[in-house]
Amino acid sequence: MSDSTHLTREKSSISYTYDNLAGWRRLRPLHPFRGMYHDVRRRLPYYWSDIRDALTYRTISSTIRMYFVNILPAIAYTLDMYRRTGEFFGINEALFSSAMAAVIFSVFAAQPLTVVGITGLISLFNYTIYDIVTRYEPAIYPSFMCWTAIWAAIFHWIVAVCNLCDYMRYVTDFSSEAFGAYVGIIYCIKGVEELINEFTKSGATAGFMSCMIAILYFLTIYGLEWLGSSTVCRPWFRGLLADYAYVIGTIFWVGFAHIPGPLKSTHISFVPISRAFFPTQPRGWLIHFWELDVKWLFAALPFGFLVMLLFYYDHNVSSLTAQARQFPLKKPAGFHWDFFLLGCTTFLAGITGIPMPNGLVPQAPVHTDSLTIYETDLHIVSTEDGEGAEIRRPITKATAVVEQRVSHFLMGLAIIGTMTGPLLIVLHTMPSAVFAGVFFIVGWGSIEGNGILHKVIFLLRENRFIQRGEPMLQVRRRKIALYIACQVISVAATVAISQTIAAIGFPILIIALIPFRAWIIPKWFNQDELDILDDLTANNSAVLASLGGQPRFPGQVVEEHYGLERRYTEQRRGSIRQRVGSISR
Amino acid sequence: MSDSTHLTREKSSISYTYDNLAGWRRLRPLHPFRGMYHDVRRRLPYYWSDIRDALTYRTISSTIRMYFVNILPAIAYTLDMYRRTGEFFGINEALFSSAMAAVIFSVFAAQPLTVVGITGLISLFNYTIYDIVTRYEPAIYPSFMCWTAIWAAIFHWIVAVCNLCDYMRYVTDFSSEAFGAYVGIIYCIKGVEELINEFTKSGATAGFMSCMIAILYFLTIYGLEWLGSSTVCRPWFRGLLADYAYVIGTIFWVGFAHIPGPLKSTHISFVPISRAFFPTQPRGWLIHFWELDVKWLFAALPFGFLVMLLFYYDHNVSSLTAQARQFPLKKPAGFHWDFFLLGCTTFLAGITGIPMPNGLVPQAPVHTDSLTIYETDLHIVSTEDGEGAEIRRPITKATAVVEQRVSHFLMGLAIIGTMTGPLLIVLHTMPSAVFAGVFFIVGWGSIEGNGILHKVIFLLRENRFIQRGEPMLQVRRRKIALYIACQVISVAATVAISQTIAAIGFPILIIALIPFRAWIIPKWFNQDELDILDDLTANNSAVLASLGGQPRFPGQVVEEHYGLERRYTEQRRGSIRQRVGSISR
Repeated sequence: MSDSTHLTREKSSISYTYDNLAGWRRLRPLHPFRGMYHDVRRRLPYYWSDIRDALTYRTISSTIRMYFVNILPAIAYTLDMYRRTGEFFGINEALFSSAMAAVIFSVFAAQPLTVVGITGLISLFNYTIYDIVTRYEPAIYPSFMCWTAIWAAIFHWIVAVCNLCDYMRYVTDFSSEAFGAYVGIIYCIKGVEELINEFTKSGATAGFMSCMIAILYFLTIYGLEWLGSSTVCRPWFRGLLADYAYVIGTIFWVGFAHIPGPLKSTHISFVPISRAFFPTQPRGWLIHFWELDVKWLFAALPFGFLVMLLFYYDHNVSSLTAQARQFPLKKPAGFHWDFFLLGCTTFLAGITGIPMPNGLVPQAPVHTDSLTIYETDLHIVSTEDGEGAEIRRPITKATAVVEQRVSHFLMGLAIIGTMTGPLLIVLHTMPSAVFAGVFFIVGWGSIEGNGILHKVIFLLRENRFIQRGEPMLQVRRRKIALYIACQVISVAATVAISQTIAAIGFPILIIALIPFRAWIIPKWFNQDELDILDDLTANNSAVLASLGGQPRFPGQVVEEHYGLERRYTEQRRGSIRQRVGSISR
Repeated sequence: MSDSTHLTREKSSISYTYDNLAGWRRLRPLHPFRGMYHDVRRRLPYYWSDIRDALTYRTISSTIRMYFVNILPAIAYTLDMYRRTGEFFGINEALFSSAMAAVIFSVFAAQPLTVVGITGLISLFNYTIYDIVTRYEPAIYPSFMCWTAIWAAIFHWIVAVCNLCDYMRYVTDFSSEAFGAYVGIIYCIKGVEELINEFTKSGATAGFMSCMIAILYFLTIYGLEWLGSSTVCRPWFRGLLADYAYVIGTIFWVGFAHIPGPLKSTHISFVPISRAFFPTQPRGWLIHFWELDVKWLFAALPFGFLVMLLFYYDHNVSSLTAQARQFPLKKPAGFHWDFFLLGCTTFLAGITGIPMPNGLVPQAPVHTDSLTIYETDLHIVSTEDGEGAEIRRPITKATAVVEQRVSHFLMGLAIIGTMTGPLLIVLHTMPSAVFAGVFFIVGWGSIEGNGILHKVIFLLRENRFIQRGEPMLQVRRRKIALYIACQVISVAATVAISQTIAAIGFPILIIALIPFRAWIIPKWFNQDELDILDDLTANNSAVLASLGGQPRFPGQVVEEHYGLERRYTEQRRGSIRQRVGSISR
């Protein structure tokens, strides 16, 4: 985008900014509701087009793809949560939560592209709280979780009202890559745990069979997505493979597990289901939160704060990546309003005793990807010698995004459909092993596409084979190593803490990366180096308009030119199709 | 190589040819011993250098690599043969056969690079004969096999004396690719059979665990070899990975199967061993072949002829691929002498009741590869626009081959060492699952690198992304499809016949491809098309000198320019490192 259109659009979006204010007026909490007001005012004019624009095939394929990509990991976490919270959170709770979030966000959100659902981190949160609470009083777990959610909702509303989402504009790849790697590792660990559980619960035969199915499921999806992004066959056929890789893989391997003979007679475990539309435990859908002791009520406050911290980062980053650089989005974002809405769903989740939904980090960009119209163009590099004096290269270009609310809404309806009796039985045919495979493919996607790994490979490669145009060549290798080391240490610390009872503290570590990047990193790296190594996670002005405009880092004198590395890669290969899990690049 | 040096070398090799003879003098059988005499005379002067040249590190790494690449599949087939020949052929027989072949061929062969050992096809042969013989008189199987071998040996000697190996110069990629694909498919089938056997013999738990190990073993070796041929890390480190992929993978997964817990307590099956240096069955090493009924003695004659046919193609093709185009070999070949020698080992194998060794088709080029000094050079393509005005590409060049006898000999000694009691016990720790993995990796290597698959992918690719220099673009797509169809039909027919009691007839089908290529194919394709689609399997003049010089196909008028496709690929990427199993390209 040229600078002039950039400016025009920023002005046209009713300039929500604090840059032109001075003194106490710059303090965001003193302008309550300002962000939310601007978010609604900016987005509302597009509401009708959000429905009208949906009349295209991409909406259908997106609905089907997102249904699988949303629900499979959600069920996978639920299997884990079910075991580790004394069977309090079951499949019905997970489906209810996903459906509620999908319907509310598709109808009311400023940015309907951000898919909201059950993440691995909330599952980690729920069972860590279970571990803590059951040390004292197991019976209060439902009410305690409810109050945690109520407090969290209150903090959400405070944050939204006080315009504090603005700080998300300082999120760069430094922290979002670290977060992506952390999520990917946690997912892979969960996959292994799922398989180990199969050994302890259903015996060695089921365990080994599950390992086999999980590995082959992973290879199937990986292979199909790889074929989908190759240059083999016609573009429409490749598109089908990429769109329906999960559908094909899941149907095949679920069927495989039911082939009569040694496969069928091995009693592997399947998704546990209970009576349709009823909570897993014998209780009503409303938690009797008013019956909780007052001391516990206040003990839930810090937990609520931590949930808010987690969602502040997790949801907003997922929203940022759903609207990331590589997508040619036209319609504006609304972070404050969406965070307020997230407070509402958190509240509803709390009082009904279902897992709290939030933005799905590795899957959020997949929704936008599934709605993006890609064209594989031919890029001919003329050469001076031989080879027919040219080299042909495929370049993938994202030409447009079908920005609408309908696919998200239909997905919500599909999840409600899944909650009915007959479809619950279909769900029951799915072996847990498939979900271990889902963990691996989603987790590995988040690691494989990660900028940290990209930089490590750069350092490992033999220098002479690196293209001379590669911007990282201008940074000293020691500096790149230091940069990676900062990220790797944070990832390692967060992964380590997640394995302990202190796991609920991990959002603090993650969020600490934003000020660390803003104040410490610039002391160690100069601006030229950061221009190459780092990049704003979202730099689309339609996105930044909701966050108070382009960020300005402390001590910054010259104008920044972030993303030299990305621009270089895009110039050579075009924009990169979003696999599930690839948080950036 | 320029035409002038080409001519000089051909003349210097004491011109063994029939091209300058006329009338009855052209009939090869009328010049008995002529080929063998020239073979010895040509190669003998290099004998001392074959030992002297071995004083280099490559000899050591080659010995270790070939020990694994030779012995693992040999044991794998033996597991199969052991079960299916009433436990007549066991590990001791397999080791004895491999060791004998290695010692004899490394000391006496004209071309010591051709590794000789136990192949999947002889295993197929042995158990098919067992199936046939046991229909009539199970007790005579040892003597019957012995007479089969004696007849085969006699036919070998006749072929060698009558100079009939000359016809091997007509072997082009048309038949050797089909053969490679056939061998690869048979290997993969064997891998599956090995796993199924684990289910029926040791139960479902062992079966699933074996599947898991086999898949992960495959992925380990594949990944290590892939890393070894990348541009990551230093060249010496990559070299280590490529050289010792089998060693690392095998040690790791054998150890894995012995980890205490669910792994160790699953009773998967291991390599069955018996008393060191003694035959598996209670018998002496000498088969009492003189005790066989005369009618059976003559019944063995056609089987012996089929063995000879199989070895004629299998051994000579393995020798051709061990000396294939991409290796810069300097020392001459000797097909007639080696085939005579193969008659001798066949005879010895027969009277001692061990499997008959012959050239290892997918593994033979690996020996030469392990002795080749590769350099990864930087190839800079200057471009006219952007990207730093150049594109950097790694090009692998084979600079020299350490042509010697010592690595082959040392490998033979290592196999003899394995026959001793303590090392047999080490062998007994290896799970059968690892061998299923060996089948998969060797088999897949033969399919992945196959020219048939390469052409299929070419047809599938979107035309606009194909480099304009690609020679196959000059051939009509219909013609390419017809060419592939001919190959695929032969492969399918041979695979199908291998699954029946008529399996022993498959060499006839394979050999029939040579005249088919010589007489039928030129009627359907013109010379320009064949120049692109086909290629001589060996075109090194040092090799062709032993076969009577450059071949001339019937009806050929113009000079052929085979291998346009290969030359194009080599120009772009350099010579391709030989994975186990990639028979060509």
